Amino acid sequence: MRKRIKRIFDNTEKKPDVIIIKNSVEPFIDENFFYATDLKTGLFEGAAAFLYPDGNIDLLVSELEAETAKGAKADILIYKNEKDFFGTIKKRVSKCKNIGVNFKKITFNDLLKIEKHLNKSNFYDISKSFEKTRIIKDENEIQTIKKACNIADMVVNKIPNILTDGMFEYELAAEINYLLQKNGAEKPAFDTISSFGKNSAEPHYSHGNVELKKGDIVLCDFGACYNKYNSDITRSFIFGKASKKQKEMFETVLIAQRTGLENVSAGALAKYVHKKVEEKINRTQFKGRFIHSTGHSLGMCVHDGSDRISVNSDLELRENMVFTIEPGIYLPGFGGIRIEDDIIVKKDGFELLTRSPKELIEIV
Amino acid sequence: MRKRIKRIFDNTEKKPDVIIIKNSVEPFIDENFFYATDLKTGLFEGAAAFLYPDGNIDLLVSELEAETAKGAKADILIYKNEKDFFGTIKKRVSKCKNIGVNFKKITFNDLLKIEKHLNKSNFYDISKSFEKTRIIKDENEIQTIKKACNIADMVVNKIPNILTDGMFEYELAAEINYLLQKNGAEKPAFDTISSFGKNSAEPHYSHGNVELKKGDIVLCDFGACYNKYNSDITRSFIFGKASKKQKEMFETVLIAQRTGLENVSAGALAKYVHKKVEEKINRTQFKGRFIHSTGHSLGMCVHDGSDRISVNSDLELRENMVFTIEPGIYLPGFGGIRIEDDIIVKKDGFELLTRSPKELIEIV
Repeated sequence: MRKRIKRIFDNTEKKPDVIIIKNSVEPFIDENFFYATDLKTGLFEGAAAFLYPDGNIDLLVSELEAETAKGAKADILIYKNEKDFFGTIKKRVSKCKNIGVNFKKITFNDLLKIEKHLNKSNFYDISKSFEKTRIIKDENEIQTIKKACNIADMVVNKIPNILTDGMFEYELAAEINYLLQKNGAEKPAFDTISSFGKNSAEPHYSHGNVELKKGDIVLCDFGACYNKYNSDITRSFIFGKASKKQKEMFETVLIAQRTGLENVSAGALAKYVHKKVEEKINRTQFKGRFIHSTGHSLGMCVHDGSDRISVNSDLELRENMVFTIEPGIYLPGFGGIRIEDDIIVKKDGFELLTRSPKELIEIV
Repeated sequence: MRKRIKRIFDNTEKKPDVIIIKNSVEPFIDENFFYATDLKTGLFEGAAAFLYPDGNIDLLVSELEAETAKGAKADILIYKNEKDFFGTIKKRVSKCKNIGVNFKKITFNDLLKIEKHLNKSNFYDISKSFEKTRIIKDENEIQTIKKACNIADMVVNKIPNILTDGMFEYELAAEINYLLQKNGAEKPAFDTISSFGKNSAEPHYSHGNVELKKGDIVLCDFGACYNKYNSDITRSFIFGKASKKQKEMFETVLIAQRTGLENVSAGALAKYVHKKVEEKINRTQFKGRFIHSTGHSLGMCVHDGSDRISVNSDLELRENMVFTIEPGIYLPGFGGIRIEDDIIVKKDGFELLTRSPKELIEIV
């Protein structure tokens, strides 16, 4: 992972002598610990990583995870208690004048203590360097994301056969999560959304105890987490024959998604892609009913960094960025349709990682 | 939730004029936001809560979650952007001289920004007050934990029927997670552990692609998350006829657990309970093979605060504390047995929340 570490340093403005990553207790764990080390297992509560400009890493871990830590190409240092922990930090990095820390992924308590023990050093925020590095995926990451996408694709295909009259939203979520794991996911990428009928009009709804009935829109938004990388997919079905309005919603969203995809390529501005998608919807009867951004960066986090394909984004798309493309139409009191697929940005276009639907599926 | 807020203030050493809770982005969310407001749904990324000594709350949330926030008995303030956010903070709390913050559950970035905008106030850590308050559960919390425990109990009963020759560890984990959700859990309380054979000797192992074979120990450690509260249960089975050694391990652990339970009551010292359990095991052939603490506090977090029933704990058990009691024996290269149940501390003893096993189950 030397290359990753060097890229992180390349992306810092003021060059630090060392970058310190420090995990707290679950869930306050910085995923960059795993990005830098490429470790796929382990919890590493309380652990720290020191990254050096030459690409080397020291890991400071508790006895319990010393064995697991050996999976990383790093010097493994073991601590038994807090005194020990800070003693080792002092020994290793007290000569470093400039220390980079991800202020967004470390607790106030942890950095306060580190500063106290390294009181001759300057600390500054390098959260942006991590974001800038991670938005461009390397080959290793792309292969892992592809696997996560394949799992989601397999599960999507099975949903129409699962849906039964009167089933509860939370039951469908349980079935989806089960299929994800049976197909190799470590866990769902996030809290699986399965909403029926008018609940589908709320983009942030997760699932409740509403029963499925004929004519309902079924909106499922979920992903697989595989080796710490995520996929993110949304499908909308009709349980029964689709009404004219439901068909028109679906067709409009599908066309909007294709418009989005067609405008993706290295060099394109994210806000331009969003504009094209939004325009497509706003020229129909559903004007104003697309109420969120077109997509987000995807990787170790489902929203991987703060970059979006949205109206105010100044991001220029570049090769090997991974994004979701997910237009939707939401009619309060009626229902919502969203279609979401994952893509890699290519020099002259994009590669689809999940199989965008060809047509509306009616479950009759 | 006025009572909870007042208890939090009662448990502070230096009385603050206000307590600020600030969530960052997933997973850097302070669960105390939900403890203080009793909200059961919503993500509340970026949101803040201001708690006042009289028990009142102000919530500062984004437009997207304004509706959900109404579930709390609080003044709801809405922000549109960061400027707006800090403008409101200034308006509401700049007169507060002393501000309490949970240094362990806020990012360095967030507190740095808050301090910048409230530069005339003093900030100090009140993480201990939250821990001290939350370790004693109120009636509302106890009822919710009981429900989470019932779900785990239901699932435990079904495991023997699920086990089949050649099944993978990750498949059993998928089945357990599925049953948890089908029975009403929002999600598994933590990454479900299902380990077969000698893998069961590693307390921190989760699950892999090892196949189940005759004679294996099957160790399952999991819980239900229900309305944001958790249960935590471990069962050990034998897939086939148990060997003499396996039987002796199980019997020893079961007796150790009962010893632990018998020593629980309000007023008992946590380290004394642990000592009794450890002694019981150390008087057998399995001396030295109980390698972790007897239990931990349980609630909104699976390890709810830092209090353990362990060798160095100075904690005195008090009524309405909720703990796990989970002795185990681990023989590297052979396997491990652990039995874990959840209890409430009562004046004169304890109440079992999950049904401790009566005997070893052999799946033949």
